[in-house]
Amino acid sequence: MSLNSIFQYFVPKDKKVFFPLFEQASSNVVSMATILVEAVNSNNAATREELFKQIDKLENKGDETTHQIYLELGKNFITPFDREDIHSLATAIDDVADYIQGAANRMMLYNVSEINDHIRKLSELILQASIDLEKAVKELKDLRNVRNIADSCIRINSVENQADYVFDRAVADLFLYEKDAINLIKYKEIYSALETATDMCEDAANVMESILVKNA
Amino acid sequence: MSLNSIFQYFVPKDKKVFFPLFEQASSNVVSMATILVEAVNSNNAATREELFKQIDKLENKGDETTHQIYLELGKNFITPFDREDIHSLATAIDDVADYIQGAANRMMLYNVSEINDHIRKLSELILQASIDLEKAVKELKDLRNVRNIADSCIRINSVENQADYVFDRAVADLFLYEKDAINLIKYKEIYSALETATDMCEDAANVMESILVKNA
Amino acid sequence: MSLNSIFQYFVPKDKKVFFPLFEQASSNVVSMATILVEAVNSNNAATREELFKQIDKLENKGDETTHQIYLELGKNFITPFDREDIHSLATAIDDVADYIQGAANRMMLYNVSEINDHIRKLSELILQASIDLEKAVKELKDLRNVRNIADSCIRINSVENQADYVFDRAVADLFLYEKDAINLIKYKEIYSALETATDMCEDAANVMESILVKNA
Repeated sequence: MSLNSIFQYFVPKDKKVFFPLFEQASSNVVSMATILVEAVNSNNAATREELFKQIDKLENKGDETTHQIYLELGKNFITPFDREDIHSLATAIDDVADYIQGAANRMMLYNVSEINDHIRKLSELILQASIDLEKAVKELKDLRNVRNIADSCIRINSVENQADYVFDRAVADLFLYEKDAINLIKYKEIYSALETATDMCEDAANVMESILVKNA
Repeated sequence: MSLNSIFQYFVPKDKKVFFPLFEQASSNVVSMATILVEAVNSNNAATREELFKQIDKLENKGDETTHQIYLELGKNFITPFDREDIHSLATAIDDVADYIQGAANRMMLYNVSEINDHIRKLSELILQASIDLEKAVKELKDLRNVRNIADSCIRINSVENQADYVFDRAVADLFLYEKDAINLIKYKEIYSALETATDMCEDAANVMESILVKNA
Repeated sequence: MSLNSIFQYFVPKDKKVFFPLFEQASSNVVSMATILVEAVNSNNAATREELFKQIDKLENKGDETTHQIYLELGKNFITPFDREDIHSLATAIDDVADYIQGAANRMMLYNVSEINDHIRKLSELILQASIDLEKAVKELKDLRNVRNIADSCIRINSVENQADYVFDRAVADLFLYEKDAINLIKYKEIYSALETATDMCEDAANVMESILVKNA
């Protein structure tokens, strides 16, 4: 153990490897959410398709970052937090990216021509949660502003609650007004992917809260 | 560290803060499940609506308890179990409440007028699992009756299996007899929320089993 | 505690109890996946039904193995890995079995008469992932071939990605060509259970990766 401590003293930079990767992953999610909001606010189907493809590319980029975090975990024996938490946080951020891409993908695959207010509102909420996710991740570096991280996590939770509410209303609307069952299914699937993206932001916030709790 | 240990010596009551909160959270779930069973056994739509709204309020109350557990985790450095397990158990109990409320909410939002035997049976199973959840949580306090906790967890698992079975039969029935696709989707969604509530009870049981395993 | 340590000294074989159980659980999943592939390649509905029932029986057998792992966890205080990881890995393998059985079950319950290429492809992918799961589990015993475990995990991840892709295409096809909404829902549910089985293989791979990370 004391030998470890000595060794630790000589390689303090090991710890630093993870923060740039986490920042990269979370800022990639913000880019994806920004493009999503742009896409669902466009009236031009071709423009939307183009933007959805950009989301697809960013998701691949995110996958690489996640994989790199896993690789670094294998190589480094000094980590800033519990290895499991690093693994869980990387996975949670990757899940956010997956669901944003999943929602975009469904809009493309199902040939959805009409983007409605529910889709726009949910996309907007994803962007909000992503921005707070990025903020919190950036603060993890020094844990000096624990309050800021906790506040971002609380805001993410609140956004997730709002997304639940919008989702419920959106689905209730489908059952009230959509008479074509297949259309109803299409939209429900898209709402669901969007709403789950905010759930995944909440998962990431939960991991960060538990990091705070352990390192308090 | 040694200073912490001294401090620890003077505040052994810290540990006790969590048990009343867990009991509060689990007995709140029992109340929600009890009202759910009452609601789905009522023939009066207005009465049901009234009861569903009570479930909604209890869910909010549960959210506050969950949040208080998280806050206490941040404030206390002496915890009766691993901090992660406290966090996971609080989250799992909160998830049960979420799905009970989710099922009630869907019955309201989708204007479901006919409550059938599948819904009644699933609600009954949720109540059974919730009662065992509360029992097990109460025993966590002293871990003297490990056998009782283990038995409750086994019963929760068995209830979850029964709920799976009822869910499968219920969905098969929909595909056999429901010719209106939109109605079929509505009921499938409601069955699914109810069945997932029992899954979440199982998650809570899993966390408690892993607490037993670690503290055996 | 010191008595425990002495006892511990005399029963080093305790550790060995888990590996045969894990191998049993994972080879049971391979059997289930093999029968699934056989079933979906058969043109005879009666043969398929017979094979689906075999899957059901194997799932029950798997449940018993999982339960035995949990029991051993309670009895043994020497474990080859963190108790939590043993618990998580057992749960993840059990989940794979659950979803294979779930998919088979849905094909039976929904009276699905036509098995298509998407179902065959997804079943094939489940078998591939299961074989790699079994391989990796067998290597856990000595951790001498860490590279092999890591490679199997990477292949499982790649299979899961392929399954995502097949699932997306399959659902897009439904929306393009299936005009009967109820049929559309049936097939979507079956695709979804199959795809989730590969997700659960990925979960198991993630647990193994995190075991590697901790024991590196």
